[in-house]
Amino acid sequence: MDNRLQKQLDFILEIDKEKNIFRQTHISGHGRNENDAEHAWHMAIMAYLLREYSNEPVDIGKVMLMCLIHDIVEIEAGDTYAYDTEALKTQKAREDAAKEKIFSLLPGDQKQELVSLFDEFEAGETPDSRFAHAMDNLQPLLLNHSNGGEDWKSHGVTASQVYGRQGSTKQGSEKLFEITDRIIQENIQKGTIRPQTC
Amino acid sequence: MDNRLQKQLDFILEIDKEKNIFRQTHISGHGRNENDAEHAWHMAIMAYLLREYSNEPVDIGKVMLMCLIHDIVEIEAGDTYAYDTEALKTQKAREDAAKEKIFSLLPGDQKQELVSLFDEFEAGETPDSRFAHAMDNLQPLLLNHSNGGEDWKSHGVTASQVYGRQGSTKQGSEKLFEITDRIIQENIQKGTIRPQTC
Repeated sequence: MDNRLQKQLDFILEIDKEKNIFRQTHISGHGRNENDAEHAWHMAIMAYLLREYSNEPVDIGKVMLMCLIHDIVEIEAGDTYAYDTEALKTQKAREDAAKEKIFSLLPGDQKQELVSLFDEFEAGETPDSRFAHAMDNLQPLLLNHSNGGEDWKSHGVTASQVYGRQGSTKQGSEKLFEITDRIIQENIQKGTIRPQTC
Repeated sequence: MDNRLQKQLDFILEIDKEKNIFRQTHISGHGRNENDAEHAWHMAIMAYLLREYSNEPVDIGKVMLMCLIHDIVEIEAGDTYAYDTEALKTQKAREDAAKEKIFSLLPGDQKQELVSLFDEFEAGETPDSRFAHAMDNLQPLLLNHSNGGEDWKSHGVTASQVYGRQGSTKQGSEKLFEITDRIIQENIQKGTIRPQTC
């Protein structure tokens, strides 16, 4: 087999491991924890269906690919829970090392392309990456809300933490942030998200 | 919330159930059975990375979306194992009913678009759908091969059955069928695929 195709197949087999990276979010119907591959699949379809709500025009094929690959580094770096302050401190260093290791399996041109796409997502400074981040926020929010907010409750998450994470949805989609805000307020009212304390 | 967005969110929550549809294929590292959402995620990334091997030019954004949604009907219809001859007889009727039910959750225009994309995939008569089918074949083949061909062995699958299923890869990609053929031959030689009998 030629070297280029071998490298591509090696990478394809390596990323299969993303199916073993479990998140704090539970799937709907009070199901088991969700894994990164499922989360990425869900986000990519959501991006396509909800693209009309992006604040700015997006290249939807690129957004979908960004969604699909944005968590590949977690194969090496592990999932970092959005409200785990200790793990968040080391997240970038762990993910940078993982990025270099995993994407280096690909042929040079594809490594460069995917690293660039991953970096664009991480920076969140373009319309495409802002909309992808809105999906990264909205997807677990919808699942958690469908399960009665249990993931927030079990971690004792506060309103300011949820707004801190979910606030970036507004940069990608004002419209989808309205829904986000409504869901957060509903969960504060019923006590699954802890209200602000001074 | 406006009706259109509500419908979109209802569909998005409904397809979460695809994470509960398990396949006969096992994930790499002799892992558990794979589910449809993981399979679709993997196929879409593969399509992007391997698009240079398509026999004909493809609209890669469309192929990726096709890969992502091609198994949604199985939420209602269940997974049909490629070598289960009894289940294959009723597959189309079950999937047609499921298609109508699930995609009807979407706003009319998006229902029409996704049903059309699903039908194009099923018919397999366009360059995009032929390449998506090649991914649908190659993805489980790579996983199964990485696990020593255990899925074929445990089901007593024959060479003609494997070639019957995997043969359509050739319509999407001659190059990727070469790899497919090599893997099948290797597994016949080591006895994980039963050789042809008269």
